Amino acid sequence: MLGCDKECASVTATTENPTKTFQWKMVTTWPPNFPIFQEAIEQMSKDLEMMSNGRLKVQVFAGGELVPPLETFNAVSQGSVQMGHGAAYYWAGKVPAAQFMSAVPFGMTAKGMNAWFYGGGGLELWRKIYKDFNVIPFPAGNTGVQMGGWFNKKIEKMEDLKGLKMRIPGLGGKVLAKAGGTPVLLAGGEIYTALERGTIDATEWVGPFHDERLGLYRAAKYYYYPGWHEPGTTLELIVNAKAWEELPEDLKKIVEVAARSSNQWMYSQFEAFNIKALRELKEKYKVEVLPFPPAVLKELKQLTQQVLDEEAVKDPAFKEVYDSFTQFKTDNAAWNLISDDAYNAALQP
Amino acid sequence: MLGCDKECASVTATTENPTKTFQWKMVTTWPPNFPIFQEAIEQMSKDLEMMSNGRLKVQVFAGGELVPPLETFNAVSQGSVQMGHGAAYYWAGKVPAAQFMSAVPFGMTAKGMNAWFYGGGGLELWRKIYKDFNVIPFPAGNTGVQMGGWFNKKIEKMEDLKGLKMRIPGLGGKVLAKAGGTPVLLAGGEIYTALERGTIDATEWVGPFHDERLGLYRAAKYYYYPGWHEPGTTLELIVNAKAWEELPEDLKKIVEVAARSSNQWMYSQFEAFNIKALRELKEKYKVEVLPFPPAVLKELKQLTQQVLDEEAVKDPAFKEVYDSFTQFKTDNAAWNLISDDAYNAALQP
Repeated sequence: MLGCDKECASVTATTENPTKTFQWKMVTTWPPNFPIFQEAIEQMSKDLEMMSNGRLKVQVFAGGELVPPLETFNAVSQGSVQMGHGAAYYWAGKVPAAQFMSAVPFGMTAKGMNAWFYGGGGLELWRKIYKDFNVIPFPAGNTGVQMGGWFNKKIEKMEDLKGLKMRIPGLGGKVLAKAGGTPVLLAGGEIYTALERGTIDATEWVGPFHDERLGLYRAAKYYYYPGWHEPGTTLELIVNAKAWEELPEDLKKIVEVAARSSNQWMYSQFEAFNIKALRELKEKYKVEVLPFPPAVLKELKQLTQQVLDEEAVKDPAFKEVYDSFTQFKTDNAAWNLISDDAYNAALQP
Repeated sequence: MLGCDKECASVTATTENPTKTFQWKMVTTWPPNFPIFQEAIEQMSKDLEMMSNGRLKVQVFAGGELVPPLETFNAVSQGSVQMGHGAAYYWAGKVPAAQFMSAVPFGMTAKGMNAWFYGGGGLELWRKIYKDFNVIPFPAGNTGVQMGGWFNKKIEKMEDLKGLKMRIPGLGGKVLAKAGGTPVLLAGGEIYTALERGTIDATEWVGPFHDERLGLYRAAKYYYYPGWHEPGTTLELIVNAKAWEELPEDLKKIVEVAARSSNQWMYSQFEAFNIKALRELKEKYKVEVLPFPPAVLKELKQLTQQVLDEEAVKDPAFKEVYDSFTQFKTDNAAWNLISDDAYNAALQP
């Protein structure tokens, strides 16, 4: 107890040993200094230290500094580090249902994802599918709607996707393959050169801000398309379950609240920076943003459903999460239609 | 220092007296037990106590329990309480520019508001306009797009608004007056009876969840319309500046992070509950949701601009905030058009 007597008696949970200091390590899936992604996590670490008055110190390592980026989940699961930050679809090979906790094609935007997590049972399901790995997840960031990418030709019909070599990972890549294209896996650092040399015909990356940073607008003459494959990618803070149990209640609450605060903060940073970058891409670099034809989007949506249905047959946990996600998405779409969608349509001149 | 030596040396700020306990009071503008609004703030108070291990105890009083709801700002400004929770447009008589910090007709939705606050200079402006009152604001909650309200007849043209007696406060009311209607001020508890007895022809309240709770769907046969006047009402945590300065750095950070966490939490609660309530209103109570005709929305938008321009002439601070808000809103709309709007359109069957 911290020197008060009667006043503190009503505190529902106090730490048993408030002088104990925790020295933790966190690994992330992001490159060093990766704007917003890595930067916001380093800020969160500083906030944790300050909120706990130095009792919870989390040393942050970018991808590759301590373990390879895609070893983040394993490292947290095994307890070799206490915390990690990344996106759940990176663990699709291990936990297929995890993909719903980051982004699936034609899924929900940030608004719906967060409503599902915090008020629709999504977070409970997330805890459930990570439980056997001794990992506790928290939503902690959202990229917003990611752009559909840069294409070296106009996409006017489904045939235009046939034979297209595009850098697009995950479920989006599986959908492209069903459409006759060739999904290519490339790390961020390899994209620009591949695009410039014509090794690939198209690529997606993140959004206007990160795409501009990578210089994709000058890799060649490219058309820029809106997104369909990652409508609101949730980022995650993951904590080793045993380490979590060792934390006193006050530090647990500090981590929980800091994660939710980061969830809000990172999303708003993505939006603010994308807003500015889009204006620059259009005005300064004369980038042409084109819409996918409705028929193409409709077809991609049908192919997505095939892909998800195929995954659901293979894995009961995937099926359980898919069902909850789909029901919430349907209700959310009905509400969107008369709230944000109706309103944003009214805003148009 | 909390019992560590070398490890704590790197902490950028530590409390000078970590044993000091703060006993604060918070007043809100909300009725006791008001779902989400008051409930979430009581939860935030519990979180503050737990995160601080009992060193920051905030006793929460609903509107009228300690001071009248609309005295919240004054009470915080004068320091008779240390904290308050409400919405900035309640202080329009004192700080006209404050309205942009909650909601203005045809303004931005939650996504844009938060991007403006956290990444577009909005929060700095907010701090500036409250500075002379010794009040420090934090965004802490968002209702999402509020519904346009319940009408006892279909609105098919501007003439249908002429003579309409509608419960609609603030700038929305001013716009209705310009359209020839009569804005009526009524507290929440008076709305149902006024509507049932035909004292008013129409009313807005919050959204499907709160509107259902108030029973508006059974006050008579009413048509339910989407919103235009409060597209993403931000709720605020306000702190007395002198009390704030007395907090050690760790507790300041705890308050700042808890406010941002509540901002995310409350918005997601509104969304999740509205999603469920809308389905119930439509399926169980056969409520008819109708769109305002585009010509009516266009005219309301023009009238809104007249109202805002008139306010801007009267007050330089209003003008300064209006300019920042308008620039950000314009860029945000361009980004929306190719991100959330394009995506949500693609989702439609």
